[in-house]
Amino acid sequence: MRERRHPITAAPKSAATATLDYRVPFFDTDAMGIVHHANYVRYLELSRVEFLRQHDEPYQRYVEQGLHVAVIRVETHYHRSLRFDEVVRVTCWLDWVKGVSLGFRYVLHCDDQVVLTASTDHAVVDLQGRPRPMPSERRDVFRRLLAGA
Amino acid sequence: MRERRHPITAAPKSAATATLDYRVPFFDTDAMGIVHHANYVRYLELSRVEFLRQHDEPYQRYVEQGLHVAVIRVETHYHRSLRFDEVVRVTCWLDWVKGVSLGFRYVLHCDDQVVLTASTDHAVVDLQGRPRPMPSERRDVFRRLLAGA
Amino acid sequence: MRERRHPITAAPKSAATATLDYRVPFFDTDAMGIVHHANYVRYLELSRVEFLRQHDEPYQRYVEQGLHVAVIRVETHYHRSLRFDEVVRVTCWLDWVKGVSLGFRYVLHCDDQVVLTASTDHAVVDLQGRPRPMPSERRDVFRRLLAGA
Amino acid sequence: MRERRHPITAAPKSAATATLDYRVPFFDTDAMGIVHHANYVRYLELSRVEFLRQHDEPYQRYVEQGLHVAVIRVETHYHRSLRFDEVVRVTCWLDWVKGVSLGFRYVLHCDDQVVLTASTDHAVVDLQGRPRPMPSERRDVFRRLLAGA
Repeated sequence: MRERRHPITAAPKSAATATLDYRVPFFDTDAMGIVHHANYVRYLELSRVEFLRQHDEPYQRYVEQGLHVAVIRVETHYHRSLRFDEVVRVTCWLDWVKGVSLGFRYVLHCDDQVVLTASTDHAVVDLQGRPRPMPSERRDVFRRLLAGA
Repeated sequence: MRERRHPITAAPKSAATATLDYRVPFFDTDAMGIVHHANYVRYLELSRVEFLRQHDEPYQRYVEQGLHVAVIRVETHYHRSLRFDEVVRVTCWLDWVKGVSLGFRYVLHCDDQVVLTASTDHAVVDLQGRPRPMPSERRDVFRRLLAGA
Repeated sequence: MRERRHPITAAPKSAATATLDYRVPFFDTDAMGIVHHANYVRYLELSRVEFLRQHDEPYQRYVEQGLHVAVIRVETHYHRSLRFDEVVRVTCWLDWVKGVSLGFRYVLHCDDQVVLTASTDHAVVDLQGRPRPMPSERRDVFRRLLAGA
Repeated sequence: MRERRHPITAAPKSAATATLDYRVPFFDTDAMGIVHHANYVRYLELSRVEFLRQHDEPYQRYVEQGLHVAVIRVETHYHRSLRFDEVVRVTCWLDWVKGVSLGFRYVLHCDDQVVLTASTDHAVVDLQGRPRPMPSERRDVFRRLLAGA
């Protein structure tokens, strides 16, 4: 629970980030009147895809090369709820890179309040789901995008 | 709007049907406190897959043969809402069959009340989405499953 | 099936419309590699909410007045599939208005091709789901938004 | 990442558990041909609701008393993918209980292989989302359900 006591609510200053604004659709809400907790995992994907588009290459290029960036771990911490039609700002950055895997972090804000902090781990796999070493050009790009790079 | 004035709320007596009971999960509800209307289209799919499993062959066999049964039309009529944890009974039957397409009908009940009536049209396509004539064994099977057959 | 033979793929010239561009997220796709057919019903909602925001009033005002605009019928016709990261343009317009109900039409385009045509019917209900007459100011607004008005 | 190195793939022998079998619907898959990672968070909810039904009381009773068991943290570790129509067995148990919060653990199996391990933390809140002390009868029940109790 270390992450909860010291939630990381901002990217390191030197890190490349991607940011998107998302207006909560009615179909994302549940009978508690707020966004259902499972939907936030989708918001993370939206910002991660945007991060790759802006800083690396569109995700379809991976697919064209026979690769996927599979999700192997998700962790989400809920700080505040969201309601229909609120606009949430999702910020995503690369947290770490290894030979076959990489990690992202996320923070979601609404009205200057932290809504969610999250992290995801990923492995590069082929279209059959088998782990593959990350292409070296990708790894070089990712390393330059890391905080402090 | 003909269907609405005379909704079909039961399968013809001679028709093969498939029935499944579905307990409404919390994540299917929205901020109106009821099942979000888009989710019913998923309930139709569940019962259609069950119909094929019971009366034709499992859907994966189609995929193994390089075929999909693509959806080309959906029509849903909402008669009553559903809440979390209610159990809805979904009944599905084959309505018509042609050379490259077929149609299903559905009725959903809860506590002896009609919740939804629906119909869907489908075309047999290959894995690239191009229309394909229905394999003749499939068409024979489907014709036997029709009402009155 | 009248609508399919003569699909309405454009709003009447005199009609107020709302248009939004939606980039297909990965989580909207299914194992056929295309957007799952149930998700289009959500795209309709996005454009309908946008229509109300632009031409009537934000949907939350309805909720604040103890009203919902419940969906009572959905009809969707699938003309072409959509893949991850394609941008679809959703156009929505008001089709008809009566004392307690109203109807919208929709057309979705991608790369100048028609992806989907659709229509939805709605009833004004209170927060318990009981039909309510449409407030007269709303009805006046809706009538002005109709084609030919 | 402690959990990943030593994933907990079975409930303590003394713990009360709830188990449900879930057949993967087509609409849960994505263009990788497997269950989209966000959907697993919904599977956890299904088993948690089942746990409360079997061992505590139906979730609606909480709602009737003006309470929700809000999700404040989710952690999921993906070990193997799932495809359409596979049957996954979801097992859920209570992991810990405090004055205003509680935690569950989960393991998902398919064909004797671990598919997913997960944990969620929850807080008891009122219908406006404010933290509330857990009713003492509930806390007593939960403590009896804990491993080793």
